[in-house]
Amino acid sequence: MRTVFWQDGQVKMIDQRLLPGEEVIASFPTVPEVARSINEMYVRGAPAIGATAAYGMALAARLSQAENVDALLDDLRRAKDTLDAARPTAVNLSWATTRLLTLAEEIAAAAPSSPASADNLRQALLDEAEALADEDVRINRRMGFNGAEVVPEGANLLHHCNTGSLATVDFGTALGVIYACHEQGKNIHVWVDETRPRLQGARLTAWELMRAEVPMHLIADNAAGHLMRTGQVDVVVFGADRVAANGDVANKIGTYKVAVVARENGIPVYCVAPTSTVDLDLPDGDHIPIEERGPEEVAEIGARAIAPTDVPVYNPAFDITPFRYITGIVTEEGICYPPFDQSLRAAVQRGRAAIEAERSERK
Amino acid sequence: MRTVFWQDGQVKMIDQRLLPGEEVIASFPTVPEVARSINEMYVRGAPAIGATAAYGMALAARLSQAENVDALLDDLRRAKDTLDAARPTAVNLSWATTRLLTLAEEIAAAAPSSPASADNLRQALLDEAEALADEDVRINRRMGFNGAEVVPEGANLLHHCNTGSLATVDFGTALGVIYACHEQGKNIHVWVDETRPRLQGARLTAWELMRAEVPMHLIADNAAGHLMRTGQVDVVVFGADRVAANGDVANKIGTYKVAVVARENGIPVYCVAPTSTVDLDLPDGDHIPIEERGPEEVAEIGARAIAPTDVPVYNPAFDITPFRYITGIVTEEGICYPPFDQSLRAAVQRGRAAIEAERSERK
Repeated sequence: MRTVFWQDGQVKMIDQRLLPGEEVIASFPTVPEVARSINEMYVRGAPAIGATAAYGMALAARLSQAENVDALLDDLRRAKDTLDAARPTAVNLSWATTRLLTLAEEIAAAAPSSPASADNLRQALLDEAEALADEDVRINRRMGFNGAEVVPEGANLLHHCNTGSLATVDFGTALGVIYACHEQGKNIHVWVDETRPRLQGARLTAWELMRAEVPMHLIADNAAGHLMRTGQVDVVVFGADRVAANGDVANKIGTYKVAVVARENGIPVYCVAPTSTVDLDLPDGDHIPIEERGPEEVAEIGARAIAPTDVPVYNPAFDITPFRYITGIVTEEGICYPPFDQSLRAAVQRGRAAIEAERSERK
Repeated sequence: MRTVFWQDGQVKMIDQRLLPGEEVIASFPTVPEVARSINEMYVRGAPAIGATAAYGMALAARLSQAENVDALLDDLRRAKDTLDAARPTAVNLSWATTRLLTLAEEIAAAAPSSPASADNLRQALLDEAEALADEDVRINRRMGFNGAEVVPEGANLLHHCNTGSLATVDFGTALGVIYACHEQGKNIHVWVDETRPRLQGARLTAWELMRAEVPMHLIADNAAGHLMRTGQVDVVVFGADRVAANGDVANKIGTYKVAVVARENGIPVYCVAPTSTVDLDLPDGDHIPIEERGPEEVAEIGARAIAPTDVPVYNPAFDITPFRYITGIVTEEGICYPPFDQSLRAAVQRGRAAIEAERSERK
């Protein structure tokens, strides 16, 4: 099953906030509702957010009362603003909405402004959203097998956050590498960082790996250093919410600590992210906005207080890992190594060309 | 109020497992019960465990049916074994039981074996346990003000675990430094690591600092790296459960990650521990046993599951921070700097002499 999909004219997704206790499919019938699904983290993970936003644009086109393409484009631009504002750090969000809006503008420029062409545009956007979702699964499998090449037989991997099927449309990014190793029979074992404060590792990654029967142990994030220092970790893998042009990585809070301690212990560190996560317009990580979330994520667990009432909390959702702590960035277009400014740019160009080629084929 | 104390022939303590929700005083009327209070973490923190164990020895003497000192010594040796087995990592536990047993042996060697001398011995052990508890408070205040000397005006401190009044008999070790700075009006601010899995920071340190009106923010342990990298931490302080002769420190799991990332960012790291925590018989940290605790500490919070049922968990309670990541070790006998093998040995000798001098004075 896919994490997010289009059904009966609505955007549907598994409510990840309820896992692993309950498996519930939630439906979002309007654009503000889709934005809310992203903001309130029914769906999370940069690629899954991208697919959700793409379906959100298709939904905006479908719901628009516009009778010509110009009016429809205006509605799409408003929808893009609403969706882009849902979460500030993940670049895939605006990457996906831009991709759909650009396609709409291209079609509009080439078509007469009429109710019929507006309907064509509506269908074209839904096709593009579906293509983006299909593409995500295909890209993830390529990334996973690219990354598996650097994982030795019998390796112990350390994984932060959730980057699996649930973070993407299916298969995953860093967890995709783990699934690929597992499919190849490499006898790997995974240390799963619980990933406070939202416990994506404990709730989601542990759930995914247990279902896939990949050998694993859940650990408190604090235990990762002890494991690395005592030789019990061979490879560190994590995803990315945004990668800057120089290879600096914005990812779930705590990634930076893991990467620093890994380098200190000579353990290779791989960030696994599709080229759509690379933002060549950002020179480095210090230009990436860091989302701050509410105090209740730290002070409460499941509405139960774990700290004194009214405790002041600081809760950044992401951190920046400077490129010098990263061994390689695994993309669907191969593994990028330093100097990242060159290798990433080349991978992004290959990735764009592949999407273009696929779109031409579809036509 | 003290964390642990003697009243009505029983060892009493605040049940730290219930904080910050409830403030309950629990009573322990037998030696196995006192061992249980340590093992089940009604009381935690190396110095508080030491005082509890000392009272446990006094309780063993009181409850012993022995009518002469030799039989009483046998009972005390059995009590020491029971208490020492309660938790394996904190050296203060066996340090305290050894101190009381050694005193008993000295008194026994000098006294005729009679019911009267057994009663004298019972009283002497209770006096010694009370002296040890008083001494802990005095030592903590000295440590706190020693450590305050290296904290600049207006500093942001990062603190791991709980090392405050609740970890000691009163005042604290690393939190003692913070209290001393606060008493001196230094306008400090504290980032409080929540300290998974048992959340001693969220539950205990936040509670203590809010009561003392020290400005603070609670953070997920994962956020500490981001704060350090972005220049928002001036000094890192933590306690120790055991310090090896070379300066390697065993402390709450996660300390090692904090120390490595601090050094990477040029932030001074101070371990704050009384000389009783230094184990000169251990050449280095790799000889310190690391306690593993149950899976439920990671997989559940307050008996509520936060991970899939039957998830495999690895849960080490402590880690080792090699001495090269530590700027200084603050003791009641001054701050020890590298080479630690020399500075620690000298501090321990001064500490022992001070206890001897105080004991002579008492006589």
